Amino acid sequence: MSIFTINSSLPEQMMEWRRDFHQYPEIGWTEFRTASIIAHELSQLGFQVEVGKEVVSEDRMGVPVHDQLLACYERAVSNGGYMEYMEKMVGGYTGLVGTIKGKKPGPTIAFRFDMDALEIEESKEASHIPQQYGFRSRYEGNMHACGHDAHCAIGLGLATVLANNTDQIEGTIKIIFQPAEEGVRGAKSMVEAGVVDGVDYFLGMHVGAGSPLGTVIAGTNGFLATTKINAKFVGKAAHAGAEPEKGRNALLAAASAILGIHAIPNHSGGASRINVGTCIAGDGRNIVPAHASLQLETRGENSEVHTYVHEQAIAVLEGAAKMYGTELSYEVVGAAKTCSSSEQLIELVAKAARSIQGLEKIIPSSKFAAGSEDATYMMDQVQKQGGLATYAVFGTTLAAGHHHEKFDIDEKVLSITLNTWLEAIEQIYLKEGGQL
Amino acid sequence: MSIFTINSSLPEQMMEWRRDFHQYPEIGWTEFRTASIIAHELSQLGFQVEVGKEVVSEDRMGVPVHDQLLACYERAVSNGGYMEYMEKMVGGYTGLVGTIKGKKPGPTIAFRFDMDALEIEESKEASHIPQQYGFRSRYEGNMHACGHDAHCAIGLGLATVLANNTDQIEGTIKIIFQPAEEGVRGAKSMVEAGVVDGVDYFLGMHVGAGSPLGTVIAGTNGFLATTKINAKFVGKAAHAGAEPEKGRNALLAAASAILGIHAIPNHSGGASRINVGTCIAGDGRNIVPAHASLQLETRGENSEVHTYVHEQAIAVLEGAAKMYGTELSYEVVGAAKTCSSSEQLIELVAKAARSIQGLEKIIPSSKFAAGSEDATYMMDQVQKQGGLATYAVFGTTLAAGHHHEKFDIDEKVLSITLNTWLEAIEQIYLKEGGQL
Amino acid sequence: MSIFTINSSLPEQMMEWRRDFHQYPEIGWTEFRTASIIAHELSQLGFQVEVGKEVVSEDRMGVPVHDQLLACYERAVSNGGYMEYMEKMVGGYTGLVGTIKGKKPGPTIAFRFDMDALEIEESKEASHIPQQYGFRSRYEGNMHACGHDAHCAIGLGLATVLANNTDQIEGTIKIIFQPAEEGVRGAKSMVEAGVVDGVDYFLGMHVGAGSPLGTVIAGTNGFLATTKINAKFVGKAAHAGAEPEKGRNALLAAASAILGIHAIPNHSGGASRINVGTCIAGDGRNIVPAHASLQLETRGENSEVHTYVHEQAIAVLEGAAKMYGTELSYEVVGAAKTCSSSEQLIELVAKAARSIQGLEKIIPSSKFAAGSEDATYMMDQVQKQGGLATYAVFGTTLAAGHHHEKFDIDEKVLSITLNTWLEAIEQIYLKEGGQL
Amino acid sequence: MSIFTINSSLPEQMMEWRRDFHQYPEIGWTEFRTASIIAHELSQLGFQVEVGKEVVSEDRMGVPVHDQLLACYERAVSNGGYMEYMEKMVGGYTGLVGTIKGKKPGPTIAFRFDMDALEIEESKEASHIPQQYGFRSRYEGNMHACGHDAHCAIGLGLATVLANNTDQIEGTIKIIFQPAEEGVRGAKSMVEAGVVDGVDYFLGMHVGAGSPLGTVIAGTNGFLATTKINAKFVGKAAHAGAEPEKGRNALLAAASAILGIHAIPNHSGGASRINVGTCIAGDGRNIVPAHASLQLETRGENSEVHTYVHEQAIAVLEGAAKMYGTELSYEVVGAAKTCSSSEQLIELVAKAARSIQGLEKIIPSSKFAAGSEDATYMMDQVQKQGGLATYAVFGTTLAAGHHHEKFDIDEKVLSITLNTWLEAIEQIYLKEGGQL
Repeated sequence: MSIFTINSSLPEQMMEWRRDFHQYPEIGWTEFRTASIIAHELSQLGFQVEVGKEVVSEDRMGVPVHDQLLACYERAVSNGGYMEYMEKMVGGYTGLVGTIKGKKPGPTIAFRFDMDALEIEESKEASHIPQQYGFRSRYEGNMHACGHDAHCAIGLGLATVLANNTDQIEGTIKIIFQPAEEGVRGAKSMVEAGVVDGVDYFLGMHVGAGSPLGTVIAGTNGFLATTKINAKFVGKAAHAGAEPEKGRNALLAAASAILGIHAIPNHSGGASRINVGTCIAGDGRNIVPAHASLQLETRGENSEVHTYVHEQAIAVLEGAAKMYGTELSYEVVGAAKTCSSSEQLIELVAKAARSIQGLEKIIPSSKFAAGSEDATYMMDQVQKQGGLATYAVFGTTLAAGHHHEKFDIDEKVLSITLNTWLEAIEQIYLKEGGQL
Repeated sequence: MSIFTINSSLPEQMMEWRRDFHQYPEIGWTEFRTASIIAHELSQLGFQVEVGKEVVSEDRMGVPVHDQLLACYERAVSNGGYMEYMEKMVGGYTGLVGTIKGKKPGPTIAFRFDMDALEIEESKEASHIPQQYGFRSRYEGNMHACGHDAHCAIGLGLATVLANNTDQIEGTIKIIFQPAEEGVRGAKSMVEAGVVDGVDYFLGMHVGAGSPLGTVIAGTNGFLATTKINAKFVGKAAHAGAEPEKGRNALLAAASAILGIHAIPNHSGGASRINVGTCIAGDGRNIVPAHASLQLETRGENSEVHTYVHEQAIAVLEGAAKMYGTELSYEVVGAAKTCSSSEQLIELVAKAARSIQGLEKIIPSSKFAAGSEDATYMMDQVQKQGGLATYAVFGTTLAAGHHHEKFDIDEKVLSITLNTWLEAIEQIYLKEGGQL
Repeated sequence: MSIFTINSSLPEQMMEWRRDFHQYPEIGWTEFRTASIIAHELSQLGFQVEVGKEVVSEDRMGVPVHDQLLACYERAVSNGGYMEYMEKMVGGYTGLVGTIKGKKPGPTIAFRFDMDALEIEESKEASHIPQQYGFRSRYEGNMHACGHDAHCAIGLGLATVLANNTDQIEGTIKIIFQPAEEGVRGAKSMVEAGVVDGVDYFLGMHVGAGSPLGTVIAGTNGFLATTKINAKFVGKAAHAGAEPEKGRNALLAAASAILGIHAIPNHSGGASRINVGTCIAGDGRNIVPAHASLQLETRGENSEVHTYVHEQAIAVLEGAAKMYGTELSYEVVGAAKTCSSSEQLIELVAKAARSIQGLEKIIPSSKFAAGSEDATYMMDQVQKQGGLATYAVFGTTLAAGHHHEKFDIDEKVLSITLNTWLEAIEQIYLKEGGQL
Repeated sequence: MSIFTINSSLPEQMMEWRRDFHQYPEIGWTEFRTASIIAHELSQLGFQVEVGKEVVSEDRMGVPVHDQLLACYERAVSNGGYMEYMEKMVGGYTGLVGTIKGKKPGPTIAFRFDMDALEIEESKEASHIPQQYGFRSRYEGNMHACGHDAHCAIGLGLATVLANNTDQIEGTIKIIFQPAEEGVRGAKSMVEAGVVDGVDYFLGMHVGAGSPLGTVIAGTNGFLATTKINAKFVGKAAHAGAEPEKGRNALLAAASAILGIHAIPNHSGGASRINVGTCIAGDGRNIVPAHASLQLETRGENSEVHTYVHEQAIAVLEGAAKMYGTELSYEVVGAAKTCSSSEQLIELVAKAARSIQGLEKIIPSSKFAAGSEDATYMMDQVQKQGGLATYAVFGTTLAAGHHHEKFDIDEKVLSITLNTWLEAIEQIYLKEGGQL
């Protein structure tokens, strides 16, 4: 018997929220509609709500250009965003935190949900459930293809139950809604704004991620530290036939850098990854290329390895620029840390999961299949403060893989996750009360 | 006293034609409106007109994709193109040849004019004459920035005078209007269709090209042989963090090829040029790049040098593909030959030029500043048949360089060129008659 | 109380053997003197001795060229090699196996010792013990800088004790003396000759390898699979000023390959290493380089990873050759497998070690610090047959690291190792007898 | 009738000198024996002789290391070098200048001969004339394979005639014997020491160089400016399996540089050449390469082109070093200028040549087949001072090409050259006297 009472209409409500968000997918730092609706709901439920610069520091990574921010803002205005909150998000400060306090003293527990969508054109095939049931993306070219729509719905479900059961709350519960997880951009600036300061227990989660419905991983490990870098070489154009010597060839610099970055020797301290994923260079066949832009990423199993790979990559970029008389500029547009879930909290979550209907397989701990997550910034900060942090994966049946145009989840995972999180709160209270 | 009478309104008429064409710039293989208007005019003047597949072989280089051809065709329909001729040009067969025969026997003389525009956004600044006088491009993103609009107007002017002076014509005069000179794509397939078969005298020309108004170069030399190549490496995508070994990295192949192509040693037999002008590769930062596309060109001072450079470049592309397990496909999308103007014809043109008002400086022969021209395919063919060929440059004051958004000519060059070409015909007749 | 009686002069004798071998260091496949002396001693002790092609297959990796083999052979003749055995080793078949059988039935136990030295010039500094005590290398440029001289001495010590205690032997004991461990060249061809066929227990060992005197690692794991490749690009020379186009540049091919090989993406299945360690190319500054030779190696934590890295490297080499019109030839001159010591035998060795005077720290199992060892070919073969295999490390104080010109060991390790191996035999007998 | 009387034994004498020098070939900056013998002879003939630092500045390019200088010096001591002069050449200052003045006033005429040999092992085949006639190189590994032995003999022949005909001399005649022409190292420092200051007529020459016996090229042109660069990348060694991250890979830097240097775009101002001719890198297959040495050269048709290519090459080297955290050091070890022979002096030499028995074909002017020559430093300096300079090629039948182990000349060229040079002096006097 849970200490929390759940209204029987809540599963249906969560599904509706999820499908609403699914129709209005907003990419990182443009979650104006999503975040303002969540803020409105939380406020209605009695949560104290902080949005915009209150919870997001100015030093953000990978923010879209001004015109795109503006277009997305206007789109949100036309599609039901709440101006009261959106006005505080101008410029892309699209994070929010809802806080509720119990009458009884107790720990501070934080849950984290991410809200952003992807630049993917959603499938129009009849077999694709969102198409069939009429909740396909209304924003062409954008899509919730990673399940963050579900995360938002679970967050709202959790808020609803807590607001209806304030008597059961001990201490403080914070629900963090983070923008821009894709590209690991948003968490760092929320940490810098202090959203996890004073948090004793931190619980992050993802649906799917390689696990089937009925399985939960109570604590994920092996997150790879990563940086996402945009690099640009600027040389000088010249007619390649008439006066090639007047050019400074940015594409030669880029080609040297691409090979050189991939050629960085491995580190004996652990696994690493490196990828120059895209290259766009030059203005025409007969013109010495005056510019070349690269998008790349480095990853490492631990800080030492990752720092090595990252620093070597920067050195290669700088040297390659120099080789051909070009100018290099680069920007770190995303970053995540390596991190491990706290053993004690993994155990609590695993214990909580055992009592949840629909969960058949409880894996205490496993490596994170998707590589990197910026929730690690929050987890790391909580652990540094002496708190406990975990990141769980709630399996669900997928119609197609993450980031695929036919990605879709089994919505049963919404209630499973909600119930597990509520039970986890109860377990934390038992532990805090010395009953575990 | 010229043997040809010129109507006093013709200069004004040529200006109008030029400004009309200027407003409807059509890129290579899409000159539906331009070519059909010229065909219509020539036909009205009594020329025998051949268009489409009659004068353009099927094996063409660098043809735009079907959708683009269709859009340009529809645009031409809406903007005054003549359906009678355009129907024969469907699919981009946008060349035409007008032929007129005299009553007296004589040689076959061919003039060649090119018709295509560029993918350049024309300047809207008030100081830009086409903007000021209201004849700026109506097709945003396209522009006559190389003077081919003037070439078309001169061709029509020439046809008009000839049609009005048929008694003076000895033998046959052909006026060739060629598509797709930019990227050196169109001439080869007109030669293959036989348009210069039986030609005794071939005269090609360009306005501007580095010479001031009042200067004419009677015969250009030093054309660089060239090929334009589009190359594509196709590998295999894979998540760069999760399973990089499943990918086949097309960008690494491209980077190796870019360096390797530029590293081809020089040839002792003459100058060469090589440029990989553009590179577009990859689908995302965290994905092993599955494709990489390059646009490149090779040039050589003579056939031997160019063949060497071209073959080496292909070998580098093939080897680079193999290095990384990728598939290479490539296409030659443009080509021009090395060529020299015929000494005898240079002399005739120079002699003709001396009597033209407005021409102060006659340069017999000079190196072609712009590098390559596919009129060389026609010149070479004529010379092989035992005929004479030349390529003249008629200087004109330019507002900005060729291919610049503010490119504009001094229209006085229209009459200067027309008059020189008429006088050249007369000189040819004198020579043929043994009077030179 | 050991079942084996050891003559009190044996430690001194082992030291003398070691110092003798130290003075005549012979590199891989040229161990004529070393191997023939061992063969002679074993034969004197009553062992059945097989040498040359009886124990080494013809398909060997990394054999020196004929002239070098000959010079080393002649050197061995002059320095006390036994012709009776050396004649069977002509051409570099320098392996041998000594076999002794007990009267009682029992298992077949094999010990393996490697014999080869390195191409290193030994230090002449007074502080270097071999210099000080007069047993520095007499073969300038060659040196026992990895301790295989000690391995040979231990092997002879073991043979001596066994010969003096034949009554204690149950079943069969084989002592394998392997050539060419450096560069992981020799083991594979001894396996192919069948030297470990029918072996139930296999024990390999190394002195030093990062462990201090008094420490033993009973079973080493984490051997990296590896291949050692010599690759040569052959192009065509040409005067770089006069006719560069006539050349085919092998150094450009090599440079592309070097970068490309290092750029091979990591494998998600485990750690890998890759190194192009040397490059020698070209005949003069002003000549297009007609040849370029590379020495490289690939390593992988397991077969799948290593096969991937190796195959990619070959593809890169082949593609690079093609890029520049050069011919590639390559040869695998060394190889080792990934392997794990058998748990049951590790336990026996650890148990044996606990009773040995001078051993204070017994590490059951650890990763092999030096990366790769071709004893893995033997271990793998024994395990495939259902036998048990282990590879132990006996720590010793080093004057300088392995492969250093001042490398030297503390000779106490000779007796420690001998005693442990004898005790291990006893443990095996106890186990076989059901007493463990 | 020449104004100079030639002793009938001189041709034989020149042949003997040539064959003596041939047996003692000394590479650049080590011509101790050669130069001291010449100095001795000139002194005996009455020339004023300057040697060592009097005629060679301290700032020399490409000097061998101290040990090699010393060994060559000692070798010269043992083989008939004159200590009186050699003492002044210690450290490799192996140039000398002999000066003779006439009683009559007149111009200053300078002749230049180079003295150095090559690091080539001379053929021992019976068909090779020097072997057959017993004057093969006595210094194994060194060989006069470019004809500088002949140049020295001609220089001595010229000195002999002049000394015997002092009455005929007007003004001053200098005979410059230059070290280290191979690798274009020696001329610059002799110019800096002032050896051509005040020279009105400068005559340089080479035998062979692609022309047959009986042909003379009176003035060579088209010398390519060049620099010879030795570059070294120093990184950091590390075990490639155990801790690759501790290395700094000098071979990766070199590979990037090799490709990058060859990839330098051509210059529209003229022909250029670039070649990385040799690469030596690394200490072992399993060690991250800590060093990589390159020998390269750049060439350009004129100063502007060459400066461009040279500077780009340096930038590539510097950038490549930076890419991989390595240190670059480089040294210019040779240099030559672009230069043209003076028209007026070409005419005089051509005129002189017409009267020489054995010369059938006189080519006034031709491009220099071998690319570069550092006599250009002297020619350029003379021309800058207002003097005239030429560089002639005297054809001769070659047994094999220059720098080949079977290179050999037809010694008839010795007298032909001497006679032409004497006649050229006479022509200069006629011109100076106003008689031409």
